[in-house]
Amino acid sequence: MKSELDALMQARNLDAFIVFGNAEHNPPMTYLTGGGHVSHATLIKKRGEEAALFFGDMERDEAAKSGLKLIPYSKYDMNALIKKSKGNGLLAAAMRCQLMLEDMGVTSGRVGVYGTYDLSAIFGMLSRLKKLMPALKFVGEAREDSIFMRAMETKDEAEVARIRRMGKVTTDVVGKVADFLTSCDVRDDEVLLNVDSSALTVGDVHSKIRLWVAEHGAELPSGFIFSIGRDAGVPHSVGNLTDLMKLGQTIVFDIYPAEAGGGYYYDFTRTWSLGYATPEAQALFDQVKELYDHLNDNFDLNVPFKHYQQMACEYFEGKGHQTPLHTNAPVEGYVHSLGHGVGLNIHERPFSGLMNGDDQRLAPGVVVTSEPGLYYPEKGMGFRIEDTLWVRPDGRMEILAEYPYDFVLPMKKWVSKK
Amino acid sequence: MKSELDALMQARNLDAFIVFGNAEHNPPMTYLTGGGHVSHATLIKKRGEEAALFFGDMERDEAAKSGLKLIPYSKYDMNALIKKSKGNGLLAAAMRCQLMLEDMGVTSGRVGVYGTYDLSAIFGMLSRLKKLMPALKFVGEAREDSIFMRAMETKDEAEVARIRRMGKVTTDVVGKVADFLTSCDVRDDEVLLNVDSSALTVGDVHSKIRLWVAEHGAELPSGFIFSIGRDAGVPHSVGNLTDLMKLGQTIVFDIYPAEAGGGYYYDFTRTWSLGYATPEAQALFDQVKELYDHLNDNFDLNVPFKHYQQMACEYFEGKGHQTPLHTNAPVEGYVHSLGHGVGLNIHERPFSGLMNGDDQRLAPGVVVTSEPGLYYPEKGMGFRIEDTLWVRPDGRMEILAEYPYDFVLPMKKWVSKK
Repeated sequence: MKSELDALMQARNLDAFIVFGNAEHNPPMTYLTGGGHVSHATLIKKRGEEAALFFGDMERDEAAKSGLKLIPYSKYDMNALIKKSKGNGLLAAAMRCQLMLEDMGVTSGRVGVYGTYDLSAIFGMLSRLKKLMPALKFVGEAREDSIFMRAMETKDEAEVARIRRMGKVTTDVVGKVADFLTSCDVRDDEVLLNVDSSALTVGDVHSKIRLWVAEHGAELPSGFIFSIGRDAGVPHSVGNLTDLMKLGQTIVFDIYPAEAGGGYYYDFTRTWSLGYATPEAQALFDQVKELYDHLNDNFDLNVPFKHYQQMACEYFEGKGHQTPLHTNAPVEGYVHSLGHGVGLNIHERPFSGLMNGDDQRLAPGVVVTSEPGLYYPEKGMGFRIEDTLWVRPDGRMEILAEYPYDFVLPMKKWVSKK
Repeated sequence: MKSELDALMQARNLDAFIVFGNAEHNPPMTYLTGGGHVSHATLIKKRGEEAALFFGDMERDEAAKSGLKLIPYSKYDMNALIKKSKGNGLLAAAMRCQLMLEDMGVTSGRVGVYGTYDLSAIFGMLSRLKKLMPALKFVGEAREDSIFMRAMETKDEAEVARIRRMGKVTTDVVGKVADFLTSCDVRDDEVLLNVDSSALTVGDVHSKIRLWVAEHGAELPSGFIFSIGRDAGVPHSVGNLTDLMKLGQTIVFDIYPAEAGGGYYYDFTRTWSLGYATPEAQALFDQVKELYDHLNDNFDLNVPFKHYQQMACEYFEGKGHQTPLHTNAPVEGYVHSLGHGVGLNIHERPFSGLMNGDDQRLAPGVVVTSEPGLYYPEKGMGFRIEDTLWVRPDGRMEILAEYPYDFVLPMKKWVSKK
């Protein structure tokens, strides 16, 4: 949680940190400012002291929403710095950053560097700043183990409420999609039809998904997945927009809406087969669902997350599938890890990969996905079930948005002629 | 244009470059890959040679859409590298990056670093990579002057077509908003009403804007502006969601939709007053419109863009307003610069600030905004007119999406009782 940041800084021997970039789609900045449309901002915090947000004057109203100590960039005469640097933009930026750090009392020690932003500009600026402030050492951290990823790993109730709200958006949209698909007319060749009798494509469904998410004022990363047949068998294929929607094929629908501006996410997957399922598909789905339920029955407080990845691999290998346990980067079978934390990052701590440390646990306050799956692109099928779960302070695991797991969705206006 | 990259690398004495991050919301990566949902990718290009895209195996279908030479990360045994690095994630990442660079024949010289991505992870990784490959010098560039910003400055016809398509989305949505607002019922106190007779808020209008943009499958950055009254007088205030929509107040509507996944933008602003305008507002609007037209009449091929900022400042100072020409960071009057390039970045070269160089010109192929404005937050009013224009190869300036400039929008069901 945010309150851990000072202790994390101490543990990493960081005297201060600096976060660059916009307050949107920039998790460390969003975490500290709460969002708002503040572009090209800078946030500096000395250990044990209040953070300050440096911002462009035109965005003062948005900056004020952060509740942080505010310092406008106009305090620093950029035109004079550009002259002094003889027009060298990176040097001028470094000179301004030096003034900002000095204003915050950061003149020596180790300074962590964070933010999602233009790598080139910041790398170039820091190269020059190091020469201007030789008593500072700028430090980067591994993405999955930074002080922010550590602090963000456990959520407070307000954060869980925001994730839960996105869960409600998700299941509302998924319900609308299911209702829409099962209401379609069906051609003799089992292709679904639009109301104008044209063939329904994956692209048509993508448009409706985007629209229904937008109705909630939420944001839908364009990498969301609604794919059918072979594409459903490739875990991260978003779906071929021209594929026709047909009965009896596996559909993987993986959707992770976020609060507008890059806030908290929810992550969710269902696998469907419209009208009927082939026996082979039904059997593979049943394996995924059996494992999914088995995991839910076994999740336990403070157990390392990778323990359940091991469990999933062993289960699937017992059914004859390849898994990462004994195959390097499999492309068939169970090809990914069981889950990940969800918050301001769609993928964050704790991670469940077999190589991860025992410290990535189902600790109270973490919010994780459980998403076992099976993939057979050559057979034209794929399967995944995913919910987002909160490890409550009382140790119970709670699915943050309930939704049925049905594989075969009966068509309202179609009857099998077989 | 993209074809200039090798020459730009040569001019900057870059032997290679490396781009980090996702293929979405990451202009250099999108520029080179064409988009597609490829997360945590790396792209390496040696000067004069073909670029290669390194990608996670699960995203092979998305990576293939780029048409680039493809190398899956699975070629490198990350588990072995993690062991070799004794679990130091940043060192393991640096060791993998070394193998990737060596595979591309990049073993000495200057390497440009680009991309919008996690600063901490890349800064930390590069610190270690420098020690592993001391013959390489990693180089950052100023954001507004990088080889990418230079290459992107002039667009080919295919890029202009994509921007024009976003222009059509924009004007379609703006037309719907105008039609919706002018169709509303109006209360005696001049507040607009929803169909359920509740007062119409700025937030209600924001929701409709988001929905109508989503209908086109486009993306709307959450910093879009639809604001009324005082907020319209603060150029980058997105609008207070609880403000009531009223007649006779200035509305600034600044909208910049992009292709889904962070592609090409269009940038557009209109200022409206519903039902009627106060004489003071009408007079200020007329000044902005007169200057806007005057600029259009005077734009000329290859003239430095800042020349027109100078023209705008002189015009507004002649009318008694503060401008950046003689006031440092004004908060009233004309408070920003005239325009900017538009492409994969909402703000890119050429820039029009008075401090910018003469090389930022209206060269053939650039796409720029022209957006004069006046801001008086204390008077509760603001004004801006903005279109996106293409400098055609024949030297003509073309507005890429036509839309009327009317300030007062007559209400369909309201008649003044005055």
